[in-house]
Amino acid sequence: MTVPANSAYTIDRSVEGSFEGVVDQTTDALAEEGFGVLCDIDVQHKFEEKLDEEFPRYRILGACNPPLAHQALDEEFLLGTLLPCNVIVYEMGDGSVGVSAVDPETMLSVVDDSDLDVIATEVKTRLQNVLNALPAA
Amino acid sequence: MTVPANSAYTIDRSVEGSFEGVVDQTTDALAEEGFGVLCDIDVQHKFEEKLDEEFPRYRILGACNPPLAHQALDEEFLLGTLLPCNVIVYEMGDGSVGVSAVDPETMLSVVDDSDLDVIATEVKTRLQNVLNALPAA
Repeated sequence: MTVPANSAYTIDRSVEGSFEGVVDQTTDALAEEGFGVLCDIDVQHKFEEKLDEEFPRYRILGACNPPLAHQALDEEFLLGTLLPCNVIVYEMGDGSVGVSAVDPETMLSVVDDSDLDVIATEVKTRLQNVLNALPAA
Repeated sequence: MTVPANSAYTIDRSVEGSFEGVVDQTTDALAEEGFGVLCDIDVQHKFEEKLDEEFPRYRILGACNPPLAHQALDEEFLLGTLLPCNVIVYEMGDGSVGVSAVDPETMLSVVDDSDLDVIATEVKTRLQNVLNALPAA
């Protein structure tokens, strides 16, 4: 498969490198933009363990920028149901590795609170910087 | 504060019990509906540690039902950017504890794929069952 271009709810990049190398580079690039990885789900392993099903290598990194998360939760207390912001790393059939981040502007569109717009835009800019920091395939 | 009724993107319940007790009951109720908790973020602790800021007790439980997640990811590969489904547990000023789950139908409305509708409805029914299993305050 190739990275679906311009999905409505993600920002995406096709990256050069080994799967584990890209996970590490993504984690480092997130740190540069002030995001810690608060949860790391190995989807391939989980499906193998729970369902005995094969699946491509696929990791979900739950990324949180504490000052921005605090601002957002002060504004909208239930927003934790939509946090952290996920960045996924997955292997593609052509040997390259895909990285996609949730588009925070799209995700926060389900919350009827325009005071979140500035925060969503700031988070999106930072996530875009993270993707741009990765070597394009 | 009280639980905001009928937020557009959550389903909510005000629950009787201690904070930690409700977290445990929620985890057990999730298991009854086939959800494992794949990540557990202590927001209060995180804000204290990273920002030296006070915040109410607040946990984000990332809940995943493996067969339904597998179906959903087979249909929509990038959906991992929106998974797992979060259930939050938080203390409220009146001494009761709030539990809110993301409304999967609202969340998946950002994905333009009507084949996900059946899965979203199934997940919502199960999350509603989880909330209903908790003792109302």
